[in-house]
Amino acid sequence: MKLALIGAGLIGGSAAMAWRRAGVVSEVIGFDCDAAATARAQERGVIDRVATSAAEAVRTADLILLAVPVGAMRATFAAIASAIPAHALVTDVGSTKRSVIDAARDELNAHSSSSFRRFIPGHPIAGRERPGIEHADGALFEGKLFVSTPVADTNAQALARIEALWVAAGARIARMDPDEHDRVFAAVSHLPHLLAFALVARIASAPDGERKLGLAGAGFRDFTRIAAASPEMWRDISLANRAALGEELRGYRRLLDELQRAVDAGDAAAIEAIFDLASRTRRSHAKAFDAE
Amino acid sequence: MKLALIGAGLIGGSAAMAWRRAGVVSEVIGFDCDAAATARAQERGVIDRVATSAAEAVRTADLILLAVPVGAMRATFAAIASAIPAHALVTDVGSTKRSVIDAARDELNAHSSSSFRRFIPGHPIAGRERPGIEHADGALFEGKLFVSTPVADTNAQALARIEALWVAAGARIARMDPDEHDRVFAAVSHLPHLLAFALVARIASAPDGERKLGLAGAGFRDFTRIAAASPEMWRDISLANRAALGEELRGYRRLLDELQRAVDAGDAAAIEAIFDLASRTRRSHAKAFDAE
Repeated sequence: MKLALIGAGLIGGSAAMAWRRAGVVSEVIGFDCDAAATARAQERGVIDRVATSAAEAVRTADLILLAVPVGAMRATFAAIASAIPAHALVTDVGSTKRSVIDAARDELNAHSSSSFRRFIPGHPIAGRERPGIEHADGALFEGKLFVSTPVADTNAQALARIEALWVAAGARIARMDPDEHDRVFAAVSHLPHLLAFALVARIASAPDGERKLGLAGAGFRDFTRIAAASPEMWRDISLANRAALGEELRGYRRLLDELQRAVDAGDAAAIEAIFDLASRTRRSHAKAFDAE
Repeated sequence: MKLALIGAGLIGGSAAMAWRRAGVVSEVIGFDCDAAATARAQERGVIDRVATSAAEAVRTADLILLAVPVGAMRATFAAIASAIPAHALVTDVGSTKRSVIDAARDELNAHSSSSFRRFIPGHPIAGRERPGIEHADGALFEGKLFVSTPVADTNAQALARIEALWVAAGARIARMDPDEHDRVFAAVSHLPHLLAFALVARIASAPDGERKLGLAGAGFRDFTRIAAASPEMWRDISLANRAALGEELRGYRRLLDELQRAVDAGDAAAIEAIFDLASRTRRSHAKAFDAE
């Protein structure tokens, strides 16, 4: 199969490498707004040829992978809509799904209703601390989840083929409703990122911020690891999923209001009840996490 | 030197092992309210003899280490005050310092003003995911910070001797004012723990909590690692440092109010400004953290 890779970053590059290694992709044409990224991808042998536009990249492809930031999805669908071959499968790796599906429906249906049916919205649950094609790794998805979020229009055969590709890349498959996906990942991914960014930004803004950072230990290091992520990418995710993230943040802030009251009042029982539920829950899932 | 170890847990046990290995401690007498903990400590060879009370443990000691939860410090000082030998050094490993110093001053001065002068408040910045003497390790403090927080009354020679012991255990030394210590660690340790506990407790309380936890990835795993910590220990720390923690939480909640407004309004610039400051700061400190 000939793959058109739109967006030559960590996730897209890793998928191309995994599929080539599994023998399901024999040629990769790449496009990225950042020409340096496609140059590096070609140097690393991740892509065979650099296209001059997203439309040119997809024109002869059997499989089209959109691995651009979620904020760039709509423009990318618009750019490729008229160039997608009638037989090609289209999929994405965006961290939010409702916004990507809406953009795909609008932009693809404007040209042909059939290409939207062959679009499989997806989200591989994998990452690295450092973004960029230079950290791409064909083993990135081994043992990780790939979440597909088909809609009523989605062609069942196309869905099965995309899921089989992720299985070939080493992933396990979960199917979810797109809105449920967005609510779940608002809670377990998008809100934690926002909270970690907020904590580090607050310390960085303090007059003694550097001193504080110099005294921080391993707990702080782990808690804030995700705050090193790309601010542009997470700004886009926060906006693309703002309904679910806003709701999750609102509920979390209510819990912090209660903890503020308990700390100020020295309410040991209220503090312990929350800490104890968390500790038991986190410990009971430790094995599942450590297996990753 | 003969060490009296009051509290046979991860930190106290690791200190006893490190000092024995360094040749500065030749005998360890242990006491813990939990007799099973001292039994395991003796089995592991961390302590040589189990005392029947904290007072008995300290009566013949040259060095007294209080490694009990901060909530138990006052009762421990009260229990040993009349039994501390006139030459003995006293120190602790509590995560909060003002509350421990106040308890030590009250309880030790009730018997003799000289033993408070030989009390060195301290905080080694080291830990493990799992508490308990079974995870104690003589190498735990290698390359880690030990923060001493002497007060005006503190004997300078006693301070120098305690710091030298931690250097022998492999630690680097930082001296801080106790109130500054409590403010700094409210920001870089106590608040992150509270936030991680709150996030996991919130997800655990959700009807689809188990599903959410099953879909969480590596970012969630790292962010919530500290939520597996002991709820009793962190309840005590939150209460012992409630003035500084309450202030830090209040400031953090103001930043979350601003992020809530920005997410709801789709204010990309406001979100990016906070995320960008955090990401640049966290990345610029990544090397220092990874070296730990």
